[in-house]
Amino acid sequence: MNGDHRTLHVINGSRKRDCSSLFEPDAWSIREEGFHPERSRFTESIFSLANEHMGVRGFFEEGYSGDSLPGTYVAGVYYPDRTKVGWWKIGYPEYYARLVNLTNWLMVGVELDGERIDLAIGRFRDFRRTLDMRRAVLTRSYVWQAADGRETGLTFTRFLSLADPELACISVTVTPLDHAAVVVFMPALDGGVINEDANYGEVFLDEVERGLDPEVVFLTMRTRKTAFDVCTAMTVRLRLDGAGKESEKIPFAEGHRLGWRLAVPVAAGRSVTLEKYVAVCTSRDHPRETLARTTTAKAQAAGERGFTELLAEHGKVMAEKWAEYDVEIEGDVCAQQGVRYNILQLLMTYQGRDPLLNIGPKGLTGEKYGGGAYWDTEGVCFPFYLYTDARVARNLLLYRYRHLRAAEENAARLGLPGALYPMATMDGRECHNEWEITFEEIHRNAAIAYAIYSYTEYTGDRSYLFTYGLEVLVAISRFWAGRVTYNPRKDCYMLLGVTGPNEYENNVNNNWYTNLMAAWTIEYTLDALDLLAREDREAHEKLVHRLGLTEQERWRWREIQQKMYYPYDDELGIFIQNDGYLDKEQITVADIPPEDLPLNQHWSWDRILRSPFIKQADVVQGLYFLPDRFDLDCQRRNFDYYEARTVHESSLSPCVHSIVASRIGYREKAYQLFLRSARLDLEDLNGDTRDGLHLTSMGGTWAALVQGFAGMRVKDDRLSLAPYLPSGWRKYSFQIEFRGRRLAITVEEDKVVVGLLSGEVLEILIHDRPYRVSKDQPAIAALRA
Amino acid sequence: MNGDHRTLHVINGSRKRDCSSLFEPDAWSIREEGFHPERSRFTESIFSLANEHMGVRGFFEEGYSGDSLPGTYVAGVYYPDRTKVGWWKIGYPEYYARLVNLTNWLMVGVELDGERIDLAIGRFRDFRRTLDMRRAVLTRSYVWQAADGRETGLTFTRFLSLADPELACISVTVTPLDHAAVVVFMPALDGGVINEDANYGEVFLDEVERGLDPEVVFLTMRTRKTAFDVCTAMTVRLRLDGAGKESEKIPFAEGHRLGWRLAVPVAAGRSVTLEKYVAVCTSRDHPRETLARTTTAKAQAAGERGFTELLAEHGKVMAEKWAEYDVEIEGDVCAQQGVRYNILQLLMTYQGRDPLLNIGPKGLTGEKYGGGAYWDTEGVCFPFYLYTDARVARNLLLYRYRHLRAAEENAARLGLPGALYPMATMDGRECHNEWEITFEEIHRNAAIAYAIYSYTEYTGDRSYLFTYGLEVLVAISRFWAGRVTYNPRKDCYMLLGVTGPNEYENNVNNNWYTNLMAAWTIEYTLDALDLLAREDREAHEKLVHRLGLTEQERWRWREIQQKMYYPYDDELGIFIQNDGYLDKEQITVADIPPEDLPLNQHWSWDRILRSPFIKQADVVQGLYFLPDRFDLDCQRRNFDYYEARTVHESSLSPCVHSIVASRIGYREKAYQLFLRSARLDLEDLNGDTRDGLHLTSMGGTWAALVQGFAGMRVKDDRLSLAPYLPSGWRKYSFQIEFRGRRLAITVEEDKVVVGLLSGEVLEILIHDRPYRVSKDQPAIAALRA
Repeated sequence: MNGDHRTLHVINGSRKRDCSSLFEPDAWSIREEGFHPERSRFTESIFSLANEHMGVRGFFEEGYSGDSLPGTYVAGVYYPDRTKVGWWKIGYPEYYARLVNLTNWLMVGVELDGERIDLAIGRFRDFRRTLDMRRAVLTRSYVWQAADGRETGLTFTRFLSLADPELACISVTVTPLDHAAVVVFMPALDGGVINEDANYGEVFLDEVERGLDPEVVFLTMRTRKTAFDVCTAMTVRLRLDGAGKESEKIPFAEGHRLGWRLAVPVAAGRSVTLEKYVAVCTSRDHPRETLARTTTAKAQAAGERGFTELLAEHGKVMAEKWAEYDVEIEGDVCAQQGVRYNILQLLMTYQGRDPLLNIGPKGLTGEKYGGGAYWDTEGVCFPFYLYTDARVARNLLLYRYRHLRAAEENAARLGLPGALYPMATMDGRECHNEWEITFEEIHRNAAIAYAIYSYTEYTGDRSYLFTYGLEVLVAISRFWAGRVTYNPRKDCYMLLGVTGPNEYENNVNNNWYTNLMAAWTIEYTLDALDLLAREDREAHEKLVHRLGLTEQERWRWREIQQKMYYPYDDELGIFIQNDGYLDKEQITVADIPPEDLPLNQHWSWDRILRSPFIKQADVVQGLYFLPDRFDLDCQRRNFDYYEARTVHESSLSPCVHSIVASRIGYREKAYQLFLRSARLDLEDLNGDTRDGLHLTSMGGTWAALVQGFAGMRVKDDRLSLAPYLPSGWRKYSFQIEFRGRRLAITVEEDKVVVGLLSGEVLEILIHDRPYRVSKDQPAIAALRA
Repeated sequence: MNGDHRTLHVINGSRKRDCSSLFEPDAWSIREEGFHPERSRFTESIFSLANEHMGVRGFFEEGYSGDSLPGTYVAGVYYPDRTKVGWWKIGYPEYYARLVNLTNWLMVGVELDGERIDLAIGRFRDFRRTLDMRRAVLTRSYVWQAADGRETGLTFTRFLSLADPELACISVTVTPLDHAAVVVFMPALDGGVINEDANYGEVFLDEVERGLDPEVVFLTMRTRKTAFDVCTAMTVRLRLDGAGKESEKIPFAEGHRLGWRLAVPVAAGRSVTLEKYVAVCTSRDHPRETLARTTTAKAQAAGERGFTELLAEHGKVMAEKWAEYDVEIEGDVCAQQGVRYNILQLLMTYQGRDPLLNIGPKGLTGEKYGGGAYWDTEGVCFPFYLYTDARVARNLLLYRYRHLRAAEENAARLGLPGALYPMATMDGRECHNEWEITFEEIHRNAAIAYAIYSYTEYTGDRSYLFTYGLEVLVAISRFWAGRVTYNPRKDCYMLLGVTGPNEYENNVNNNWYTNLMAAWTIEYTLDALDLLAREDREAHEKLVHRLGLTEQERWRWREIQQKMYYPYDDELGIFIQNDGYLDKEQITVADIPPEDLPLNQHWSWDRILRSPFIKQADVVQGLYFLPDRFDLDCQRRNFDYYEARTVHESSLSPCVHSIVASRIGYREKAYQLFLRSARLDLEDLNGDTRDGLHLTSMGGTWAALVQGFAGMRVKDDRLSLAPYLPSGWRKYSFQIEFRGRRLAITVEEDKVVVGLLSGEVLEILIHDRPYRVSKDQPAIAALRA
C-alpha cells in the first residue's frame, strides 16, 4: 500500500490536485480498469452497495478463490460476541456486538464447458468494473480465456433496490465469443458463513429452515443468542439473446449452501443471461412464522416483474435522491467524484428509515468496529442529516434517548452517577473493550449533548429539547459532576484519567477538549433548564421533580462550570491538548519519513503514544464546535500548532480541520483537507479501506463543503453563509432544508446565489448581511475575497 | 472471602496479633480441621507441594467433583499460547508462555463396596489436612460415612522427593472401622488435562506413547509447538495391616487416562494401604528415545525401595535444608508459622538447580501469570537467594544475561536502542500483553541492573560484573538513553508514558521511581566502566570496542543522569509519585470502606485508576533500593504520605514497606507489614490465593526480617547489622552466607549474637560499630532501643 501513502503525501503536502490513478476521474462513475488481486479487498470495499436495509461488498458473483471478504450484512442483525481482552478489568462489557456476516446471496457460479470460472486461477483480459453512481448500479465485465485460447465475454450487473430494500437483483451474461459452449450457471445461497473477526472463531448462525423447489430456493438462518431470523430467497430467469428461455434446474445442496445448476448450450457469438432475484427479510420486520413465505413470495414477485422494470424503479428512486442531495462542483472532477461517492454511500447506508438503527463507522461494508454506533455519528455525521432532513437527525437523537437507561447503567458500572453513553453499541450497552477507551474516552458524552444543541439551534424547534433532550442533558451533566476532581490547592475542577479524541494519547489529565465540552454541557443544561422555566413553568417543575434535581445540585454544576481548569501555555498562546503534552518532543508531521506513514501501521504503539502526533482533531474539534468562544487569532495559533502535529489517521479528522481552516481563512489548507476527506477511500489514504469504507467521515466531507467552504451555520436564529470558492473551482452548489424550506445554494466565481425551492420566504445572512429569499427572488451576494 | 478481608483489616489497622482461624497456629505445621468446600481452591493452593522439578496442588487423590483446579506442573515445560488482546497494537508479543498443566499423576480413586468416594457428594467426618513443614509431607484423613451408617477411615500421605526430584510418592490407607468391605483402588495417570486459563481453549498436549503392563504404567505426552516430552510412570504396592500383599491389577484405559483397578476384601478394623510411586521425567533432562524406559525404571526402582525408605531419604534432605534455612522466632507463633511456611515454599520451588529456570510469581502452584519470570525475582526475591546462597543469585543473574539478545530484540520492536527486559518471559521473549505494562512498565530494567549491583556489593566478587554484568548494564543504559525525552524548556530529561511499580496508575509521566532508577543505572554503569578501566585497562578497551561504546555516548549518559527530572512537592516535602499524582483526590486507605477491599475485586478499573490508591511500593521502592540517598526525615515524610495511600494489593508490597519502616524506626508498622507478608497466603489477605501461592513475595518476607528487623546490609564493604526485636518477640535467629562464611545471627531481648559457623574470621558492623567474629568468639552487641 506504499503507493497510496505517497498519494496521501501529494495531497497533504503540495498543491497538486490530480486524483490517484486507481480509478478514472469521472463525475458520475468509479471505474476500475484491469484487475488487481493485490488490492482485492480494497476494491471489494470500494464497490460495496447497500440500500439501508442490507449491504454487500464488491466481491464476485462467480466466486473467487483469492483473497476476499465476501460480506453480506443486514442492518440491525448482530451477534453479541463474547468479549476478548488480555486481562479482565472490572467494568469491561460482556460482549462486543457484531453485525453478522449473513447468508451469501450473491453467488452465481459459472462453468464453461466444464471449467469453473475463477479469476484467481484462470486467464482473462479487459477486466473492468464500474460503479454507476447516478443509478447505484455495479457492473463488471471481462473476457475469459480458456486454455485453448477460446474467449468468452462475461458481464455482471447488480443493484440493491432502493425502491424495495428487501430486494437485490443480479444479472450475469455470458457470451462465447468465438466458439459454441455449454454454459452452466450455479445460482446459490450459502448460510455457511462466518464472521472473519469473531473473537473466538464462534459460528454466529444456525440454520432454521430451507426450501429448494423448482421455483424458489430459500434459507432461513438464525443468529445465536440474539435469535434474529434472516430468510434469504432467490429465484432466477434465463434469457438467450434477450428472450426468455427455460432450462432445467438441477437442485444441489452442500452444508448450508443450496441452489440450482442450469446448463445452457450457447452458439458462438450469442449471449445467455441469468437473472437472479433475491429477497432478504428478517424477523426484525416480519412475523417469524410467515417469514419464509413472505420472503419467497417477494423473490418470486420480483422474478415476475423482471430485471429491467426493477432496475428502472430503483433508478427512479436514486434519481429523486440525487435531485435533492447532489453536490455539483465545476472545475474539479476529482473533488466532484469524491463528493458524489461519499454522498452515494451515505444515502445507501443510512437515511433514518428505522429509528432503532444508527450509522456504523464502516456502514454495511465490512466487519471492523462491529457495525455499532460510535460518537462518529454526533461528532461528525450529524450536520449532514440535520441540514438535509432534520427528521433523520431527530431519529438519531431519539436513538440516544432510548438508550438513556443503558447509559445510566454504564456509568453505574464504573461507580459514577448520571449517564455515560457507550463508546460502541448496538443496543445501548457498552461494547468497547479497552479500558483507555471504554472507561476514559468520555468526551463522547459531550458530542451527544452537542447534537441536541445543534438540532435545537438549527431547527428552532424546542420541543425535542424540552420533551426528551433535557433528560439526556441532565444525566450527562450529572456524569460530569461525578467525574470531576476538585483540586483544593489550585481551586479548580479537573478531569483526570481521560482519553481525548486523539487516541494517540491515552489516560491523560485535563484534556482541554473534554474539559471544555464538559463545562459547556453543564452550561447548556443549566441554560436550557432556565429557558424551560421561563417558557413553561409547570413543565419545568414537573421535570425537576421527576429527575430529583435540587438547587444545590445546580449550584454545584455552576461552580464546576465556572472553575473548570483549562490547560493553556502563555508562551505559545495555545491551549495545551492535555497536561504534559508540551513535555513531549515537539517535532511535526513534516519530520516523519514518508515511508513511516500511516504511523499506526509502522510504529510501535509505544512510539506513537510518546510522540506528539495527533490521530485526529482534538483541540481543533473544540474550535469547530464552539467557534464563537475563541477569536480568530486564537483559533489560528491553535490550528497552526496542532495541524502541524496531526496525522489525520482517523477518517473523522480532515473534515473537522478543513472546516476550521475555512473559518480562519486558510483556504488552500481547507481544500487539501477537504480533498483528503472526499477521496479518503478512493485513494485508500489511511491504508485500511480494505476493512470497509469510512462511512461516518463521508458526512464530514459534505460538512467540510457546506460548513467550511460555504460557511453555513445558524447565527442569531438565522441561517448564515460566509462562502468562498476554492481556488480552481468554477462553481459549486448544494441544497439544504431549513425550517420547512428547501434552499439551493450556488457559489460561483464572483457571487453566491441562494434560491428558495419550497417553503416560506426567509431572511438569511450572507457574510453577516441580511438577505431576503423568496421563490421568485433568490438572494444574490458578492463573494468576499 | 469477606472474612479474610476483615482479617486483613485487623492486621493492617490494629495491634491485634492473632492469626486467623483458618489454620491452627503451630510452629511446624499447617493444619486444617474440617473441610470447607467454599474455599476448596484456596486450600488446594495452600497445600501445594513441589520439589523444584515439579509441583502439585493440594487436590485430592481420590478425585473430587466439586470446585477444584487439579494442577500438576513441571518447571520449564511450557506452551506458547497465542496472544489474546482486545485490539492488536504493534509491538504486542506473539504468545503468552504458560506452564502446562501436565499429566495428573496424583489419582488414586477409591471405591468401598462399589461406592465411589467423592467428598463433594458423600458424608464424612473428622476431616483433617496437615502440612508437616519439617518434613514437607502432606497428610489428609477423614472418616467416610456410607448411606447405611457404616464408617471407614481414610488416610492419604504424599511427598515430592527432595532427594530425587523426579519422584513422588503417595500412600492411601483405608480402614473399614465397623464392617468388612471390598476396597477398590484405582491408581491412574491422566494426560487428558487442559490449562484452565488457555487463551482460546486450545489443548496443549498430544499423547506420544503409553504402556499399561502388569508392573508399570506410563504415559508420554508432548506439548504442542514446544515439543517437550513428559513421561509419567507409576507402579504400586499393596499392604494389608502393614504387610505386603498381592492383588490382581485389572488394567483400564479411557481417553488419555490409564491405570489399574485393585480390589481387596478387608475385614472390619483392618487397614489396607496402596502405595503409589510416580516418576516424572522430561526431554529437558533426558534423551527423548529412552525417556519412557528411564521413567518406568525409576518408578519401579522406587517401588522396590518402598515408601518408608524414600520418605526417610526425603526427610533427611529437608532436615539439612532446615538446618541452614530455618528462621526461628520465639514469642510469636503466628509469625513463626508464616515465616516457616514461606521458607518451605521457597525451598520447594526454586533453589537454582537449573540455571535455565527462574521463579514464577505463583511458583508451581497455579496457572496464573503463566509461570514465567517477572521483575518480582530481582525486585523482591533476590536478597533471599543472595544472602543464603550466592551461587543461586549468580544463576539468576546469568538467566538474564542469557536473555540479553532477546531483550535487545524486544527494545528494537518498540523502536528503541539497547535492551528492554520482558515483563514476563519463559525464554527471554516478552509475553505480557497489555500495552500499559508491556511497553511502559520499563522500570523492570532497573531492577535487573540493581541485582547486578547487589550481587557485586554483597559478594565483593567483581568477576560477574566485569565478565557479564557490564554488558547487561550498558544495554540497559542505552535503553534509558533512547527512552528519555529532553525537555528544552525545562532543560531536563524526562521519562514520559511509563507505568511505575504502582500498576494502579498507567501511562504516567515522570514516575519518580523509574526516573530515579534509570539515572541510577546510568551512574552505576559509568562507575563500573571506570572501575574496570582502573582495574584492567585491557579488558576495558576490549569491552568498549566490542560494544561500540564511544566517549560521546558516555558524555550523553552523564548529562542524562545529571539532568534527570525528579518530581518533588515543596509544600509537602515529598517526591511526587509521578506528574499529576497530587492532582488526585488525596484521601487515604483509612477512608476506604472495609467491604470495598481489596479494591481490585470491588472497584471498577476506572475508579481505581483515578483514585490516589497505590497497589504496591513505588516511591517507597526507591527508598528501599537507595536508602543512602535520602535522609531519615525525607524517608519518613515520603513513607508517611505513601504508606497511608498504599493498599498493598500486590504481594510484593508489604515486605518492601516493612523494611523501610524498620529503617525509619516505625517498628509497629514494620511488624504489621511483615506479618501481612508472612501470612499473606495463609490468611488469603489479597483474596486471590485460590489462583496459587504468592511465591515471589515469600522471599520478601524473609528480607523483611533480615534486612528490616535485623537491618542487615553491606556498608563500606562490610556486613552490617542494625537489629531490633519486634515488640512481643523474645528472640529470633537466622543464618546467612557471606563471602565464604556461614553466620548465625540471633537477636534477643537485650543483645544480638553473631556466630561464625564456617569460614574465615570476619569483621562486621553492628549499629555501625565494628565487631570481630570468629568460630570461637561470636560477636555480641547490645541492642539499641
